[in-house]
Amino acid sequence: MHFAFLLVSADHGGILLTLFIIFAASKTLALTASWLKQPPVAGELAAGILIGPAVLGWVQPGDFLGVMSELGVMFLLFRVGLELKDFNLMRVGADALLVAMAGVVVPFIAGYALMAALGYTSMEAVFIGAALVATSVGITARVLESRGLLDHEASKMILAAAIIDDVLGLLVLGVAASMAKNEINILQLGLTSALAVAFVWIASTWGTRGVQHLAPRVEPKLVDAGGAFTFAILLLFGLSLVAMKAGVAAIIGAFLAGMMLAPTATRRLEEMVDGVTEFLVPFFLAGIGLHMDLRPFQDRANLLLALALLVLACVTKWIGCGAGAWRMGRANAMRVGVGMIPRGEVGMVVAQVGLNAGVFTPLLYSLVVFVSIATTLAAPPLLKISFRGEGD
Amino acid sequence: MHFAFLLVSADHGGILLTLFIIFAASKTLALTASWLKQPPVAGELAAGILIGPAVLGWVQPGDFLGVMSELGVMFLLFRVGLELKDFNLMRVGADALLVAMAGVVVPFIAGYALMAALGYTSMEAVFIGAALVATSVGITARVLESRGLLDHEASKMILAAAIIDDVLGLLVLGVAASMAKNEINILQLGLTSALAVAFVWIASTWGTRGVQHLAPRVEPKLVDAGGAFTFAILLLFGLSLVAMKAGVAAIIGAFLAGMMLAPTATRRLEEMVDGVTEFLVPFFLAGIGLHMDLRPFQDRANLLLALALLVLACVTKWIGCGAGAWRMGRANAMRVGVGMIPRGEVGMVVAQVGLNAGVFTPLLYSLVVFVSIATTLAAPPLLKISFRGEGD
Repeated sequence: MHFAFLLVSADHGGILLTLFIIFAASKTLALTASWLKQPPVAGELAAGILIGPAVLGWVQPGDFLGVMSELGVMFLLFRVGLELKDFNLMRVGADALLVAMAGVVVPFIAGYALMAALGYTSMEAVFIGAALVATSVGITARVLESRGLLDHEASKMILAAAIIDDVLGLLVLGVAASMAKNEINILQLGLTSALAVAFVWIASTWGTRGVQHLAPRVEPKLVDAGGAFTFAILLLFGLSLVAMKAGVAAIIGAFLAGMMLAPTATRRLEEMVDGVTEFLVPFFLAGIGLHMDLRPFQDRANLLLALALLVLACVTKWIGCGAGAWRMGRANAMRVGVGMIPRGEVGMVVAQVGLNAGVFTPLLYSLVVFVSIATTLAAPPLLKISFRGEGD
Repeated sequence: MHFAFLLVSADHGGILLTLFIIFAASKTLALTASWLKQPPVAGELAAGILIGPAVLGWVQPGDFLGVMSELGVMFLLFRVGLELKDFNLMRVGADALLVAMAGVVVPFIAGYALMAALGYTSMEAVFIGAALVATSVGITARVLESRGLLDHEASKMILAAAIIDDVLGLLVLGVAASMAKNEINILQLGLTSALAVAFVWIASTWGTRGVQHLAPRVEPKLVDAGGAFTFAILLLFGLSLVAMKAGVAAIIGAFLAGMMLAPTATRRLEEMVDGVTEFLVPFFLAGIGLHMDLRPFQDRANLLLALALLVLACVTKWIGCGAGAWRMGRANAMRVGVGMIPRGEVGMVVAQVGLNAGVFTPLLYSLVVFVSIATTLAAPPLLKISFRGEGD
């Protein structure tokens, strides 16, 4: 007998229904997308828009779903790391740095220039530029892993560039936020960046070797407490927390934790992580679409601005990152460019910071959220085209 | 780049730290328990008391952890159902009914009599009796599955009796709550019970056959949307929701969903479910201990009453259910009796209902919570003794 879902809190029953609706809608639209010869991810993203406030209003975004969504993208990146059996961040480092930097500079300048030309204030233009800098690697990673393409040369470049983009994007957003408060502290920004770089560097070199040495010794001792799976979860949570303390996103820590475990992971561990990931990822994907708000775009001028920003967001990342990856050949450069397009949850966070800093009007906030979601929806079909003939 | 854990909401970072603390403390104390030759479950339960408000105060119970905890016990019972390849609820039904009824009547009368003899009001005595009726099958199931004992004759009897206990317990609590409001509606109580019985009966007979017919046909069609795992999650959430609508606990639906899938489940599906379960269960186990409040028991009279109730709670379930299972032989009767002792989260829910109905004073509430947690802590070592020589 167990009444908690029944009597104590009607909310818990409501949450169970919400989880069911999100899961069922995600999977139904994933199938629909796949019948339309589109990547299932596109359907799961669309599910969030459909059941969220933008269309049906069955599900509202909230704190609980926010955490489920963040756990989802953490496990997604953790699994991507776990699947990369032969990935050395430092080896692709220099080329990835070029891709990431080009993918930061081109969208930022273009976004700033467009908004400034349209008469927006310089602070507004800076934040729009910062929003266009964002890269959400989760969506691309999901498309690539579902097609067995994670070991592709272009995929590894995208992952490495996205990690560096995280550090650069932090810097850009940090500068923008400091400008908004009129107090730029060069020393602190420098220290933050150095700490972030040091974390990624230490974790991906010594950390990986350390875990490869440690895991086979520690896991047998944990056998009465869940063994390798417990070790994996503790490393995942632990490194995500350290990443946050070092000033990079939790998912970077999650990805590095996966990478560290990749050489020693058993098939059983991989399938258990698969279970958690497949359980949580729909909440990440649908969770993005829940934030879509289409009302401001009934006004034609706003709609035109949104579409202009959307085109700019796609083209500038594609050209910037594509140019940065030109040495890999035309086909791979295209793939890298397309893979960096989605802004996803990261663009939405920049929008939130802009709003909190008092720089963004509600309209500009909605604009950035729209562009973040729309770029994310555009990426799966574009990835499908650019990787045609590769993978499964 | 992904700042959500970093900038938007300091809370999310706090939640990640909380999840890490709960997971790490659970596993550390599980290892400690196992070094002390005790079941690891006892350690995970104790972890909640240690890190919760009762001792260290590092973690407070809250809505988010409550949902994680409920998802944890749902997946736990789902997996137990999934592991029972040859279990027919109806076949053990009649014997299990006897066990459940004896396990309801004896503790209720004893609890009522003790409180009435001590001069408490008759309503207070009724609610204490109702709290002693509760059975939390999660803890017992966890101990039995971790020792490979789920297929044991006594284990199947415990599971079947716990399901029936859920329906009976609902009835007792319903009567008690109606008495508190002074409006007993026999017709409605009868209808509720009939609906609950009908749900369990239909799900465990036709439902199981239906799913065995359906699963091999539907799962291949879902392959682009996660295949068998998606089917399993939808069945789990769906049946849990229907169970709640029918007036039984969500975990009964979860258990039945697992049972339905057991004959067709692949090893991959089982390992994926293992992953989600192992990820969530520490939040269920430690989550129980978080509610412990030891302050009222610094008063010696309160402490004595708590200990008296604890002994009564253990002895009456043990004797009641043991006597009900006497036909299975002395050893198995002992095992069944011990297996029904834990009150866990269910007893805490009765305490909550008593408090909300205005019947319980804060002291009585704390008493019932204490007994619920203490019986739960007592069960793993007692199960270990009663199953000595069996299983792994």
